[in-house]
Amino acid sequence: MQQQQNGIILPPASTSSSDWYAGIDIGGTKTLIILARRDGQIAARCKRPTVQTAEPSDFVTWLFAMLDEVLQQQGLTRQQLAGIGIGLPGAVNPEEGTIRHVPALPLDGINLKQWIAPHYDGVLYLDNDVNVAALGERWLGAGAERRHLVMVTVGTGIGGAVIINGQLYHGADYTAGEISYFVVDYQPGEIAAQQASSTAFGRFEAMASGTGIGEHARRWLQEHDLSSPSIDAVLQAAGGNVEQVQAMHVLELAAAGNTEAVAIMEQPLDYMAAGLANIIALLNPQCIVVGGGVSESAYYMAELQQRTRTLIPIDCTIVPAQLGNEAGALGAVYGAITAGVREQI
Amino acid sequence: MQQQQNGIILPPASTSSSDWYAGIDIGGTKTLIILARRDGQIAARCKRPTVQTAEPSDFVTWLFAMLDEVLQQQGLTRQQLAGIGIGLPGAVNPEEGTIRHVPALPLDGINLKQWIAPHYDGVLYLDNDVNVAALGERWLGAGAERRHLVMVTVGTGIGGAVIINGQLYHGADYTAGEISYFVVDYQPGEIAAQQASSTAFGRFEAMASGTGIGEHARRWLQEHDLSSPSIDAVLQAAGGNVEQVQAMHVLELAAAGNTEAVAIMEQPLDYMAAGLANIIALLNPQCIVVGGGVSESAYYMAELQQRTRTLIPIDCTIVPAQLGNEAGALGAVYGAITAGVREQI
Repeated sequence: MQQQQNGIILPPASTSSSDWYAGIDIGGTKTLIILARRDGQIAARCKRPTVQTAEPSDFVTWLFAMLDEVLQQQGLTRQQLAGIGIGLPGAVNPEEGTIRHVPALPLDGINLKQWIAPHYDGVLYLDNDVNVAALGERWLGAGAERRHLVMVTVGTGIGGAVIINGQLYHGADYTAGEISYFVVDYQPGEIAAQQASSTAFGRFEAMASGTGIGEHARRWLQEHDLSSPSIDAVLQAAGGNVEQVQAMHVLELAAAGNTEAVAIMEQPLDYMAAGLANIIALLNPQCIVVGGGVSESAYYMAELQQRTRTLIPIDCTIVPAQLGNEAGALGAVYGAITAGVREQI
Repeated sequence: MQQQQNGIILPPASTSSSDWYAGIDIGGTKTLIILARRDGQIAARCKRPTVQTAEPSDFVTWLFAMLDEVLQQQGLTRQQLAGIGIGLPGAVNPEEGTIRHVPALPLDGINLKQWIAPHYDGVLYLDNDVNVAALGERWLGAGAERRHLVMVTVGTGIGGAVIINGQLYHGADYTAGEISYFVVDYQPGEIAAQQASSTAFGRFEAMASGTGIGEHARRWLQEHDLSSPSIDAVLQAAGGNVEQVQAMHVLELAAAGNTEAVAIMEQPLDYMAAGLANIIALLNPQCIVVGGGVSESAYYMAELQQRTRTLIPIDCTIVPAQLGNEAGALGAVYGAITAGVREQI
């Protein structure tokens, strides 16, 4: 943890009312708020189910009530914060504060900065959830000090974030990194039908996400002889119920050498390796940081690295994320710190 | 043609000895030199077979002798040039002038700036050939004024160039845009074997380049009944010799509704559409400029646009290049102009 790194010039402490920042990671199901100092040290954290409401005003009121609780535990108020950073699942324009493509939240199409203004008038940084996770990993995690970095998150879905010249790249319409739409499995005459028949978020996501691995595993088990010993081991890991088999069960057994689990993982690993090869071909990043639950499997990461290398002769370091579920909130803090610096220039 | 555009502040005319620039596009088989003014107006052009020599010194001597000839025709000398820009097929570090991966030229692994220094000590800009073509198209062609733009060239091979925030993005190791290595046709268990069995420049290039279209067409014709009327039309376009069938023959007939030619184009078009979808997913550019011979076919471009749209719901304008074989030399001029501006700051 350094006070100053990655080329960011931090303002002298006296120019802010404090060096406390709030980092908020809003998900469709859970919201995490952390309080951190400018060096990234976390003093408090609070995670709760995201409120279910149809109104932006209700949502923002709920969010700031939750923030106030966390602040009070530290004897702080909103006014004492040097800045607030927020990540959320959608296409976010950080300059304007407008938000699109957020089906999981009652914020679709609004200007969140304007809705927040009555609650907080200090430094505010808004961005996409994967973008802030990438900022966090580059600041304090697996991507430290990399100038050109791509983050890929593999969980319920697949997300991506692109950092170029040390800066997040958002794209023409704030959808850069939407690699869930990658096409890696063209077959003559079937490409459009394949894409159309997959989920709304793309066939690559359907095949290679954590959810996709689970679905693939369940289909695979149902098509094979459930009485074989190694298949039985996969089933037992999920409590004997094929419907409960998840990616983590398969990955644990594959790491232990279970031949069925290894066979199940072939396809999702090849899909992801093809996706990473495409990222490397187009962007030649120094580093790809892989986040999400699967990246905690050393087996998954080693296989992914090896398979990607067979597909493309261009070097790229492929590493697992290090900050787990706090990457986004920490990256939101980082975004607020740098946004504050820009405002003072 | 404008004196000032795309955010570039041009220096006052008095600060340069002239507003003449040389733009050089060195290819493996041919080299083009143009003399142009700062507004992009071309006053002279000369295209010759690229010299075959094993020595960098011989190559540079040849290049500057050719340049001198072009200059003399305009009554100019090297010293009167405001700058020289050079594009060449390889991984080029524009700051240092080092060059790698140029099997077609005797320059692999050298520092070309140092080799050129005894011949010319003015403003010198070096970059990859596709990169300078992208600069040219953005300056005076199809990509004018786009902030985020990707260029894809489809010819003997497939090349790519990435412009982000109005600047060329080179990647960690100066290989950004090497989309010839895209993986778009994964099939379970076969991915590594497929890539390994393709050319050294990647399977995507082998399947979707102009060369690849020709090879695919010849294979296709050899596997089908050559006596059918529409196949005969394809053959006749190539002088009746199946070995002479090229991409352009197929594209011309497909545009005229020849059912065999349309069928032949299905696969290369789907491959390229998959590649463009991957670019759009990762980078969300405003615009993809497609260059190379195939882009002159309105049929190819219309099919490519339509197929790409079916693969990805993110908007992107897909347009043919406008500057033809002069894009690279013009972009090299543009690079020299902006390099000159930077040197004066």
